[in-house]
Amino acid sequence: MIGILGGGQLGRMLSLAASKLGMRTHIFCPDPNSPAFEVTPHRTVAAYDDEAALAAFADAVDVITYEFENVPSATAEFLAARKPLRPGANALAVSQDRLAEKGFLASKNIPVAPHRTVETLAGLEAAIDALGLPAVLKTTRLGYDGKGQRVLRDRADAAAAFAELEPKPLVLEAFVPFDKEISVVVARNLSGEVRAFDAAENVHRHHILFTSTVPADIPPGVEKHAAMLAKVIVVALDYVGVLGVEFFVIPGDRPSLMVNEIAPRVHNSGHWTEAVCLTDQFEQHIRAVLGWPLGDPTRMADVVMENLVGDEVLIVPGELDGNTQPHLYGKTEIRPGRKMGHINRITRR
Amino acid sequence: MIGILGGGQLGRMLSLAASKLGMRTHIFCPDPNSPAFEVTPHRTVAAYDDEAALAAFADAVDVITYEFENVPSATAEFLAARKPLRPGANALAVSQDRLAEKGFLASKNIPVAPHRTVETLAGLEAAIDALGLPAVLKTTRLGYDGKGQRVLRDRADAAAAFAELEPKPLVLEAFVPFDKEISVVVARNLSGEVRAFDAAENVHRHHILFTSTVPADIPPGVEKHAAMLAKVIVVALDYVGVLGVEFFVIPGDRPSLMVNEIAPRVHNSGHWTEAVCLTDQFEQHIRAVLGWPLGDPTRMADVVMENLVGDEVLIVPGELDGNTQPHLYGKTEIRPGRKMGHINRITRR
Repeated sequence: MIGILGGGQLGRMLSLAASKLGMRTHIFCPDPNSPAFEVTPHRTVAAYDDEAALAAFADAVDVITYEFENVPSATAEFLAARKPLRPGANALAVSQDRLAEKGFLASKNIPVAPHRTVETLAGLEAAIDALGLPAVLKTTRLGYDGKGQRVLRDRADAAAAFAELEPKPLVLEAFVPFDKEISVVVARNLSGEVRAFDAAENVHRHHILFTSTVPADIPPGVEKHAAMLAKVIVVALDYVGVLGVEFFVIPGDRPSLMVNEIAPRVHNSGHWTEAVCLTDQFEQHIRAVLGWPLGDPTRMADVVMENLVGDEVLIVPGELDGNTQPHLYGKTEIRPGRKMGHINRITRR
Repeated sequence: MIGILGGGQLGRMLSLAASKLGMRTHIFCPDPNSPAFEVTPHRTVAAYDDEAALAAFADAVDVITYEFENVPSATAEFLAARKPLRPGANALAVSQDRLAEKGFLASKNIPVAPHRTVETLAGLEAAIDALGLPAVLKTTRLGYDGKGQRVLRDRADAAAAFAELEPKPLVLEAFVPFDKEISVVVARNLSGEVRAFDAAENVHRHHILFTSTVPADIPPGVEKHAAMLAKVIVVALDYVGVLGVEFFVIPGDRPSLMVNEIAPRVHNSGHWTEAVCLTDQFEQHIRAVLGWPLGDPTRMADVVMENLVGDEVLIVPGELDGNTQPHLYGKTEIRPGRKMGHINRITRR
């Protein structure tokens, strides 16, 4: 029995993958309407700080994983004391704080955007002096899909952005003149085996991932380099599971890479794997968490993954064609900006 | 909400496929330990003739399908009066009775093995006179995996075999000197769209499917002919869903085909589709049942599916290699002869 913290679409897809491997799953989520609750009879509806519920959950499962990086550290420690937590608490600590993440990456000589910690408005002014404008002011925690950040184009934007973003400290990041964003989903298992999926080229719309295209339109050397950096990260973290790494590709005679962020979980930009890989990212994560050998991430065709956000889900099933594979999350309520599903479109076999 | 009759591995895999399409599933099965109960919170544990339970089940779902052809006809009629039953009751009536099945196929000019109805021992003697020996004496109902049949090699076998097999009438089938067995999984949806997966070449061991190899080692014309016959069958039955057709390949200057049997459901010999097709047989069935367009059955690689029977399941995960994909059914008890899972092995990309 695999315990999964979080009942959204990622938890749901992890549960489905675990079921294919003959496992049972137990979903822990505070929201009684979680889509993952529809794919297993084993659930706990409770807050992440409900220790009685957490203890009972830990008793009911053999190993614990999660679908989101914002698992409170107290929750992670409480559970890790009772059952194996994979990926480990250190991966959460690093990835849920932008400053810790950048510090960790820089310590491994992995390029990140120039940045400064911002604790006061005067500190923000000084950071702007150092990094120039435009720049992006971000919270250090709980940011995703564009939440918790403001682009500063002018010094006049500084005070309002500083006041709005909470909690402090914040981080100011230099605006990186990147050409495109790519991402690599990489896996490491208990015995240290490491495998990466091909890099995806990502396009965002309204700060939400719109498409992931594979192969990415980048030189082969850049893709190899991205995979290598992703592998360095999971080895350095003694990581177990799947991890997503987002990179900026910086144009130049020889394009260079900069890590935007890492996510210690299956990743939206890896959903293409389910259509064209023998082992997809969800199964790869479950294999790693179980201590199994990793599966084969080789890609069998070219593919574009497209998120279905809000009303876009209504194109299914009417606008499916022969090369298109839908995956819907079973969310009962359509809301603007809500990820409702995705489609994978084969572009070349 | 899709209602599924039967909680074995086929029901489980149908439920997983339905979840990928955002659907909820409700499993109806008399056995409280059904593996399909582990992949949805919605279940009914009741006998197939429990009308109160069937009525409540029908009320709870939008459409009903099944994982096995031996759904009692009274059950099928009871449910079909309340909610759409797909495939329809006629497909069950034809496929759960060998004589009805052979009569239906022959009426469409689809070749079947020479056979005779046997109601008495004297009738069996006359049938042996007509068909020769060896021949196979079978019950007309509830036969699967070699159950309910006896090979007659000698007239001396006749009386004992006739006495053992119940219920009467029986059917005596001529022994067909076939070269190999192939099968085709074909789908038809509500709007009449028909798509077939590639033919698989099947090898049995102890009367249980051992391997399905794709592509089958048969001339292209024979594969095309098999697909055509399978399509004729689903059109003739006004069928909705996936149907498996087993063929004997009869050697000759130009090999010919004979239908061994049809199964109005997803089929063990179609499990390879999940590893190498954009849409696998389980999703294809669910799409058909939902009234959706069918998905793409194109095969992206060569593959061998191998059943894991009894203790064989213990090779997972230890003996997996990079080309091998396991699917386990989550059955808690290993028993000899019990299908515990399968693996798909990519043999050529």
